[in-house]
Amino acid sequence: MGVWKGIDFTKMFYEFLAMTLFVYIGCGVAMATLDGQEADNSWRLQVAFAFGMAIMVLAYATAHTSGGQINSAVTLALVVAQELSWQQGLANAIGQFVGSLLGAFLLQFTLVDAIEQTTLGSNTVADGYSNMQAFLGEFIMTFLLCWVVFETAVDPRSITRVDDQKKPSMAPVAIGFAVFLAHMVLLPITGCSINPPRSFGPLIVAGFWDEGGVLGDYWIFFCAPHCAAIAAGIMQRLIHTDGEICPKRLEEEPVQLDEVETNDMLELVNNEEML
Amino acid sequence: MGVWKGIDFTKMFYEFLAMTLFVYIGCGVAMATLDGQEADNSWRLQVAFAFGMAIMVLAYATAHTSGGQINSAVTLALVVAQELSWQQGLANAIGQFVGSLLGAFLLQFTLVDAIEQTTLGSNTVADGYSNMQAFLGEFIMTFLLCWVVFETAVDPRSITRVDDQKKPSMAPVAIGFAVFLAHMVLLPITGCSINPPRSFGPLIVAGFWDEGGVLGDYWIFFCAPHCAAIAAGIMQRLIHTDGEICPKRLEEEPVQLDEVETNDMLELVNNEEML
Amino acid sequence: MGVWKGIDFTKMFYEFLAMTLFVYIGCGVAMATLDGQEADNSWRLQVAFAFGMAIMVLAYATAHTSGGQINSAVTLALVVAQELSWQQGLANAIGQFVGSLLGAFLLQFTLVDAIEQTTLGSNTVADGYSNMQAFLGEFIMTFLLCWVVFETAVDPRSITRVDDQKKPSMAPVAIGFAVFLAHMVLLPITGCSINPPRSFGPLIVAGFWDEGGVLGDYWIFFCAPHCAAIAAGIMQRLIHTDGEICPKRLEEEPVQLDEVETNDMLELVNNEEML
Amino acid sequence: MGVWKGIDFTKMFYEFLAMTLFVYIGCGVAMATLDGQEADNSWRLQVAFAFGMAIMVLAYATAHTSGGQINSAVTLALVVAQELSWQQGLANAIGQFVGSLLGAFLLQFTLVDAIEQTTLGSNTVADGYSNMQAFLGEFIMTFLLCWVVFETAVDPRSITRVDDQKKPSMAPVAIGFAVFLAHMVLLPITGCSINPPRSFGPLIVAGFWDEGGVLGDYWIFFCAPHCAAIAAGIMQRLIHTDGEICPKRLEEEPVQLDEVETNDMLELVNNEEML
Repeated sequence: MGVWKGIDFTKMFYEFLAMTLFVYIGCGVAMATLDGQEADNSWRLQVAFAFGMAIMVLAYATAHTSGGQINSAVTLALVVAQELSWQQGLANAIGQFVGSLLGAFLLQFTLVDAIEQTTLGSNTVADGYSNMQAFLGEFIMTFLLCWVVFETAVDPRSITRVDDQKKPSMAPVAIGFAVFLAHMVLLPITGCSINPPRSFGPLIVAGFWDEGGVLGDYWIFFCAPHCAAIAAGIMQRLIHTDGEICPKRLEEEPVQLDEVETNDMLELVNNEEML
Repeated sequence: MGVWKGIDFTKMFYEFLAMTLFVYIGCGVAMATLDGQEADNSWRLQVAFAFGMAIMVLAYATAHTSGGQINSAVTLALVVAQELSWQQGLANAIGQFVGSLLGAFLLQFTLVDAIEQTTLGSNTVADGYSNMQAFLGEFIMTFLLCWVVFETAVDPRSITRVDDQKKPSMAPVAIGFAVFLAHMVLLPITGCSINPPRSFGPLIVAGFWDEGGVLGDYWIFFCAPHCAAIAAGIMQRLIHTDGEICPKRLEEEPVQLDEVETNDMLELVNNEEML
Repeated sequence: MGVWKGIDFTKMFYEFLAMTLFVYIGCGVAMATLDGQEADNSWRLQVAFAFGMAIMVLAYATAHTSGGQINSAVTLALVVAQELSWQQGLANAIGQFVGSLLGAFLLQFTLVDAIEQTTLGSNTVADGYSNMQAFLGEFIMTFLLCWVVFETAVDPRSITRVDDQKKPSMAPVAIGFAVFLAHMVLLPITGCSINPPRSFGPLIVAGFWDEGGVLGDYWIFFCAPHCAAIAAGIMQRLIHTDGEICPKRLEEEPVQLDEVETNDMLELVNNEEML
Repeated sequence: MGVWKGIDFTKMFYEFLAMTLFVYIGCGVAMATLDGQEADNSWRLQVAFAFGMAIMVLAYATAHTSGGQINSAVTLALVVAQELSWQQGLANAIGQFVGSLLGAFLLQFTLVDAIEQTTLGSNTVADGYSNMQAFLGEFIMTFLLCWVVFETAVDPRSITRVDDQKKPSMAPVAIGFAVFLAHMVLLPITGCSINPPRSFGPLIVAGFWDEGGVLGDYWIFFCAPHCAAIAAGIMQRLIHTDGEICPKRLEEEPVQLDEVETNDMLELVNNEEML
């Protein structure tokens, strides 16, 4: 069917694989280290650091193949900013949601028996916080993430690149630490999603296993990140298309080197002839 | 009016946006994780790490647009060293102070009800330390920050750049960890400001909400960082203008490549002719 | 004998030296800081961080000489993917196992008397977890490590490189944090091996000293990482040889620059002649 | 006098400034956060992280001016390996020892009254460990540091450089984390020196103030790092001079580009003539 035209299934596979590992690692750290202990400051630091560095590592591993989104909110932001076709974005998102299910399933198998009651890192709004507050927190921190992705991985002028024509070799560090910061702020409030597929797998698998799911709050962890992604994508288009700030998609319209060099050389030849 | 000439309001906007997020993240981590717990070592480590990595992430996000100062002390140091016009510096500082207010306001809305009494991360001199000691600590650590900015982000010879003509792609890492170190040293003494706008928003918003402000010590957090910035800026000018250490602003007087290459090629042609 | 042909003993020496230091550091942190304390969250964070950053530091130190494997599972994965000859791989592995023995011996000498009963960081399956669960965890996290090595240090398109022809200057950061993540997940389950030589030395030396070895579980820490390495190596060959994703071993068949430039220049000359 | 010939006093000044800040930061974190608390795991993690990241930040700040040694052991290792003249090395070391005194003095002024009894981060051999064990630990970890400096900051083939001719832009990260690892291992054993000047200032200033110095163990913290530096320097010379591993000091004998390009171009011209 026509809709499949232009979809690269290898990219979908890498998004699937990366999300499987992301859920296994991030939720694995959250669960295996919480067993019989309180969620204190040292627990939060290590969980936030694990989620953040997992994104950094997996973004390095997949940036050159799938683009290293590993988050349907980031995928949506790129689609809104017209950096990614909606067909490929949808395929990537499907890969991410399925990967999250597999990651949560593998994690459940690794932890079952050892840890009796585990939510597998599902997100809920903590006591004392309203849904509105949770939505605001998830919105702001997902907006931060999408903005950092645009500025460090998409913008050709970013100093994550050694040169405008080079690869953004430092972008995964900035993006990974943006995820770390989101978890540092939101772990006490919502457990921190900012990533709808990452919340989906643990929710379904934990619900399937222990019959006591937490589906009630999932609309927040689905809507808030995607709304923030749309907002970040629109801001990116407004600033970088209408304004003069960024020559949009510089890397897709590379300076045509043969022409340029020809001209330089011709100039050179002319200079030579002037001797 | 003539005073607005040469001011880039896009840069002011990015400084505003970055400071909004910086206050929301940094003070958010300090507040949300302190709720009902003591300020122990693990709390300090995570707060210092969050403030430091927030500067790193936001510096990567804004270095190519606004310069990524996110601190009026850094802005002032650049003005003193004549790396930035005072008009643009003033505009950036205004953006930073307004952004700090917005960040503190959004944070207050996120935390209110859940956390009854919160200072929103305002700075005060801790018991047992004198104002002089607090001033000295804030001065030394802001001096470190401004010096690291000059050496890693301004000096064209810095090894944060792959080459003298390239972007300082590692500078935000060095600068972010300088901020981390300042917080590690100063959190037990002053709560660590080294950044007048970052202290301003939480002070005003917390005072407006709970009527028990901490305005008394703010002169330290306004004066000490700005004094250190002036000292660092003067040292930079003395060493790098009068001495021969650094060809000042090498990146603004780039080697004119066509001329150079022409000459090289001419030399080459001469060499060929010598054959 | 012919089998020694093509073996670079300098590489073997560097793998030996790096593994000696890796075991001394990693197991040293695990032991010296555990003395009389419980294995709580802050202990786990620092042990995981020490193991991960030790791999990062030692990979930077040896990448340009031995390739910086410091793990027989990584060595095996490279052999399976035909990035390394089996003779050199075997030599490297022997160097690693001997280095682990020396590192554990030096560590035992540093700690003996001060710490009465120490396992020197040997791995065991924790109470509550089955051998199957331990095997699964070790398999998945070693698979992550080998995959990250292939994508960041072997694939010429990786954004760890500024350019396809350049060195993977960010790869040790990604690889080091993959090791950190593995320890964050597996420390509560197996103590985290993912590295058969690293588990070997402490096992032998601790058994020799206190007569109460933990040899029983070593088959898991030998087999699971090596099985994952074979799986990752096969996936690498399937995707990157049969598919079109990666021009295999681009860095070993470098573009012959003189020929290319000659052709470009000829084209240029032709273009000039067309004027 | 002739002995001062070839000494760059600007380099000496930067080593002095960096060591002043290093002692103020590192020992400041160790002291200010220990007040009234036990030296537990979370204290150790933050102290090790602060010392390590301080070296990273200060190495980025001074690498292009003084070489960023900030440690007389590293300076000695470079002198032994003939990468630095002994006159400049001596000047740098004097700058370091004086900077350490100033840093400790400023720190004492910042903390006095608030913290009654402080050793300012002086090093001692912990109870239960022998002098021999302390010496061995300090020796091995200083050897690691010097080896990492040689491989990442001196060797032109290191992957800390994008290219053989480029700056080692990732070297301070590797070196900083080597210092972090040394502190993680040695904090429970000796408090971790691996840096004779860093131990000197706090020892003298703390002794001057509270009359109860800890001079007794200083010979270990002076001799062990310097012995390790000599060992690492000799290994460097043996491997990289006699062997063929590293074209020694490639960066000081750069390929003469005009000659090379001339030849390439001549070859090109010949190829053109062959048409």
